[in-house]
Amino acid sequence: MNNKIKILRDNLKIQDLEGMIITNNSNISYITGMKAEGTLLITDKENIFITDARYIEEANNTITIDDEIIVMDSADISESDYLSFFANCNKVGIEENDITYSKYQNFIRIFRLKDAVETGNIIEKQRMIKDDEEISNVRKACEITDECFKHLLSFIKIGMTEKKIALEIEKFFMENGADGLAFETIVASGENSSKPHAMVTDRTIKNGDAIVIDFGAKYKGYSSDMTRTIFVGKIEDEIKELYNFILACQKRASNKIKDGANGIEITEGLEKEFNARDYSLIHALGHGVGIDIHEIPILSYRKNYILKENMIVTNEPGIYIPGKLGIRIEDTILVNKLKSEELTKSNKNLIII
Amino acid sequence: MNNKIKILRDNLKIQDLEGMIITNNSNISYITGMKAEGTLLITDKENIFITDARYIEEANNTITIDDEIIVMDSADISESDYLSFFANCNKVGIEENDITYSKYQNFIRIFRLKDAVETGNIIEKQRMIKDDEEISNVRKACEITDECFKHLLSFIKIGMTEKKIALEIEKFFMENGADGLAFETIVASGENSSKPHAMVTDRTIKNGDAIVIDFGAKYKGYSSDMTRTIFVGKIEDEIKELYNFILACQKRASNKIKDGANGIEITEGLEKEFNARDYSLIHALGHGVGIDIHEIPILSYRKNYILKENMIVTNEPGIYIPGKLGIRIEDTILVNKLKSEELTKSNKNLIII
Repeated sequence: MNNKIKILRDNLKIQDLEGMIITNNSNISYITGMKAEGTLLITDKENIFITDARYIEEANNTITIDDEIIVMDSADISESDYLSFFANCNKVGIEENDITYSKYQNFIRIFRLKDAVETGNIIEKQRMIKDDEEISNVRKACEITDECFKHLLSFIKIGMTEKKIALEIEKFFMENGADGLAFETIVASGENSSKPHAMVTDRTIKNGDAIVIDFGAKYKGYSSDMTRTIFVGKIEDEIKELYNFILACQKRASNKIKDGANGIEITEGLEKEFNARDYSLIHALGHGVGIDIHEIPILSYRKNYILKENMIVTNEPGIYIPGKLGIRIEDTILVNKLKSEELTKSNKNLIII
Repeated sequence: MNNKIKILRDNLKIQDLEGMIITNNSNISYITGMKAEGTLLITDKENIFITDARYIEEANNTITIDDEIIVMDSADISESDYLSFFANCNKVGIEENDITYSKYQNFIRIFRLKDAVETGNIIEKQRMIKDDEEISNVRKACEITDECFKHLLSFIKIGMTEKKIALEIEKFFMENGADGLAFETIVASGENSSKPHAMVTDRTIKNGDAIVIDFGAKYKGYSSDMTRTIFVGKIEDEIKELYNFILACQKRASNKIKDGANGIEITEGLEKEFNARDYSLIHALGHGVGIDIHEIPILSYRKNYILKENMIVTNEPGIYIPGKLGIRIEDTILVNKLKSEELTKSNKNLIII
């Protein structure tokens, strides 16, 4: 059987569950290796992927006999089939953070579930620790991102729009082996840079601009995530100083990221440095990266996660001055026992083009 | 007050609801005009958009005083604030098809809701009928799509990868006024064309290929959706004949799309024609288009919708022969009282490049 299902089945047993209904697309993709809409059932006897005609051919090509996953077209499943799937299961897990309220009610009815139990992100927790193949895919996504950044440094010119730069990133990814973008690229210049989640616009790059470039590639379904803030032409000393301050904070946080470290402590450490200069950290310091661009663990002061070997997380402090300027520096980091490895390795010293 | 909220408030009254919690991002974007994560509360006294620090600046720039929407940072909301919002409401609507099971439970707790009521896609139903501004945005998205198709006919060459074509589409959109892609472009060539939801690959275009190109632009947040299947070099007469058959079926279906028409009847009409030649329609015939690429109404044999003036729907029959060939032809159509208007106007006669 597919190794990921084996681990999941062990974890279900620990939670005293006899089956599970998986609705989260990223979790389905994690387990089956394919991107398709559908529902994956882990029953006491079988693993069944219910999808529709649009995906049947792809599913039959991707899922192998060793996976031990039966692929079914939802159009061919009768009412009594649905009743049979969990007939011998008392407790069946659901993904309460993914399933909609209406789907939940429908599943209770069609599967006639005796006890639908919240699983508390059981698969997301499994996904926190990456295996060798996953790490190698994220590593490759980060390499392509680094190459792209090098390319951008000679590509970006005054007068160019943010959109043109964003498009060049996608083109570079596609032409250099990536599946595509890991997420919608942010290219935020000048006053736009103060919005942490800015959309790309037709604003043209001007002398004196800061440009926040937050981008990542997808490689075999796995993501990279990197931000660099670069400057154009003449910039004030005060801004250079602010940049170097953020960079020093980011590096100190990176050095703390390793097996056994505590996410809240790392975040609070950085926040103290920001607060000492009357800035505040207005978003989380970092997040897990993998199939999704935002996964657990989260590095923030809200919820505690202890970092473990083979997690992959970002470290992305930023300071934003509304209407004026934003600076963010972000790397994707592989957590190791002793010294962690920044998988994104692009130059992060102050760059002025 | 924002006109869309006025209409929503009238609709809530009809359903005997005193408030509503809106979680669906597209619905929030429909009402507020902005793309941001958050929760929109319609209470008996106020309209409140709860978001976080990342979006506050953008929200304050986009939402005007006339909207009468109060923007709040979730970090500033206390437990007692949450309790106060719906203190005077007995029945509060939720979006059961969007809200997750865990968020539903959390809302019941923090708002202390007396009666959380399913609203049955109340906003999605409102969104089915487009106003003038929405129609004009979809129209513009369709125009850009048509221009792009014209460009593709001279751009596509034997030896080019599917990815290169997909990228050219995005580049064209960005350089011609679109916000970006309305959805992930499908460029499926040769044997790949038989998968209705194929991902773009590195397969190169070959003599004899069919190429299914399913693409759409986003303009001011609104989408277009068009598919053309074109052929390369020498193709069999049998395939030409099949193409012309599908085209004739698609045109007949288009002619039936108008105010008062019945979605099931149109779908069944087309299906009968397919079945008479031993083919079947393996996906819906069409769907609404707007902020989302897939909206209600759906044109299928499953659920009945009566078409109304100013709906915008697709008409996209396709035939797929696994491992060999797929042909789909799709337009975005504005439903009118008498004769509807195809907003995508690209040539759909058999094209061989």
